[in-house]
Amino acid sequence: MSQHLHLAHTIHKHSTHLGWDRTIEPVRTAQSGDRLLFECKDAAGGHFNAESTAEDVGRMNPDLANPVTGPVFIEDAGPGDALKIVIEEFNPSGFGWSAIIPGFGLLADQFTDPALKLWSYDTAAQLPAVFSSEAGVPLKPFIGTIGVAPAAPGRHSVIPPRRVGGNMDIRDLCAGTTLYLPVEVPGALLSIGDTHAAQGDGEVCGTAIESAMDVVVSVEVVKNAAPKTPRFITEGPVTRHLDAKGYAVTTGVGPDLMQAAGDSVSSMIDLLTGMTQMSAEDSYMLCSVCGDLRISEIVDAPNWVVSFYFPRLVLG
Amino acid sequence: MSQHLHLAHTIHKHSTHLGWDRTIEPVRTAQSGDRLLFECKDAAGGHFNAESTAEDVGRMNPDLANPVTGPVFIEDAGPGDALKIVIEEFNPSGFGWSAIIPGFGLLADQFTDPALKLWSYDTAAQLPAVFSSEAGVPLKPFIGTIGVAPAAPGRHSVIPPRRVGGNMDIRDLCAGTTLYLPVEVPGALLSIGDTHAAQGDGEVCGTAIESAMDVVVSVEVVKNAAPKTPRFITEGPVTRHLDAKGYAVTTGVGPDLMQAAGDSVSSMIDLLTGMTQMSAEDSYMLCSVCGDLRISEIVDAPNWVVSFYFPRLVLG
Repeated sequence: MSQHLHLAHTIHKHSTHLGWDRTIEPVRTAQSGDRLLFECKDAAGGHFNAESTAEDVGRMNPDLANPVTGPVFIEDAGPGDALKIVIEEFNPSGFGWSAIIPGFGLLADQFTDPALKLWSYDTAAQLPAVFSSEAGVPLKPFIGTIGVAPAAPGRHSVIPPRRVGGNMDIRDLCAGTTLYLPVEVPGALLSIGDTHAAQGDGEVCGTAIESAMDVVVSVEVVKNAAPKTPRFITEGPVTRHLDAKGYAVTTGVGPDLMQAAGDSVSSMIDLLTGMTQMSAEDSYMLCSVCGDLRISEIVDAPNWVVSFYFPRLVLG
Repeated sequence: MSQHLHLAHTIHKHSTHLGWDRTIEPVRTAQSGDRLLFECKDAAGGHFNAESTAEDVGRMNPDLANPVTGPVFIEDAGPGDALKIVIEEFNPSGFGWSAIIPGFGLLADQFTDPALKLWSYDTAAQLPAVFSSEAGVPLKPFIGTIGVAPAAPGRHSVIPPRRVGGNMDIRDLCAGTTLYLPVEVPGALLSIGDTHAAQGDGEVCGTAIESAMDVVVSVEVVKNAAPKTPRFITEGPVTRHLDAKGYAVTTGVGPDLMQAAGDSVSSMIDLLTGMTQMSAEDSYMLCSVCGDLRISEIVDAPNWVVSFYFPRLVLG
């Protein structure tokens, strides 16, 4: 544990909530400029362990999914302000899981049975995580869910992302990134959870390397600077941990972006199962933790191109 | 001109066609293993020159847009085969243009007036192209349109991309990339055009740095290996020419990927016009030639996240 962690206020993992709601009582008050340590549970709230099997996927209670730690009341933050959050440091647990959850994921129609992949990884995230004898995934821990309370009254599900952030699953919300969220209620009510050890753009199977972690952030209120939707800045490159050997890329072409995205991933799974000994289920989960969905072309009506980029480094 | 170019068969730029059609007479026959040089016009067929203005955008004849050079009949290529194309080398003209064309582009509703940006760039593509005193764009020449004839009879517009390729505008179809296209007719009937000096994922304003170039490719028939849609392999990283200073990123969040993509670009234009002296029109065109649309999250129903990544290096 570094000196940073000692300086931070800790928001303990027993202080989690499900759903965004402006009436949830803050568990701590912080000031602009404070450094905060959030103890984050994984998206299944600790349901899985090293002995879990695919059968345990069906035993998850969906009403308990994606707990977030908080909320923290930030003094002087009010509607119309931006909450600037510098993501400083991760202390990952070393245990993770990925799953195919029936009814969930981009290819839910093709993958109807549950599957579970357990990960044991280097807590410094310096070494690739072993997926199989054929594949290893470079790690980049990040925050899957970070958000503030919406102005609209009531309890809002924690599963979909929103204008105020939430379950955005943007894989570059990692150490070194500065995020700006629009504040909609007094005190902002910041919560963080759903930490991931690695994920590609899209999170195509619905899960990343889901993993409990401590996260250190610093917060600052920027008056009257609310963005319409979350925005962020990275100081450096975002893919150099896995781009050295280039990419194998498949495409989807057509008038519907969602269909094109699905087609591109489906073709990549076919490619991987043809090139390796992996099952389709393993290929799908591997795509989710390391491959990227990009919109290559969105203007040549009526057909768009969505491409799925699989980093060749992962296969050695 | 390198030795490679001397070794290639040349497909001259007077041999262009508009529309994909299996009955177009081949201009040359090639064998598997041959190296071919395609002289490619820009997407406006040479309509613009160094004296052109925004008024000339309205004088383009849309029926003449996106001419492609070819087609080349590849011996032994037949339906069900893959045409493997190694993209070897570009010889760019040094002149380019980008435009806002009314009715075209991701934000056509917001940008209704024509605009034109002319470029004069280093033909070796080693130096960033000057956009303004505030911005310079690293170059990576690539093929905007590359495809083979569809099996379906008739003339098919050259504007939308198709299962057999065409106007895919994938910015990584650059030197060093190996592309696989599905062959649908005897001889494949390969054509190439619409070369670009630089573009981001999405080509959001509808144009890249549009620029005439000679392109050298080698072709090879792979029997009974047709992919469902185009796929390709890059041997190395794809963004290291512009990622050194990281990215500013805006997001769109919602149930429609197209709307979320538009929102993310619209927010980036707001950000750029606030940070720089650039007009909204210039910001939009700059986004198109260097910024990337990524699908960050496509599984947390009912809301998806599309992110627009703008490389900070471009602003110096």
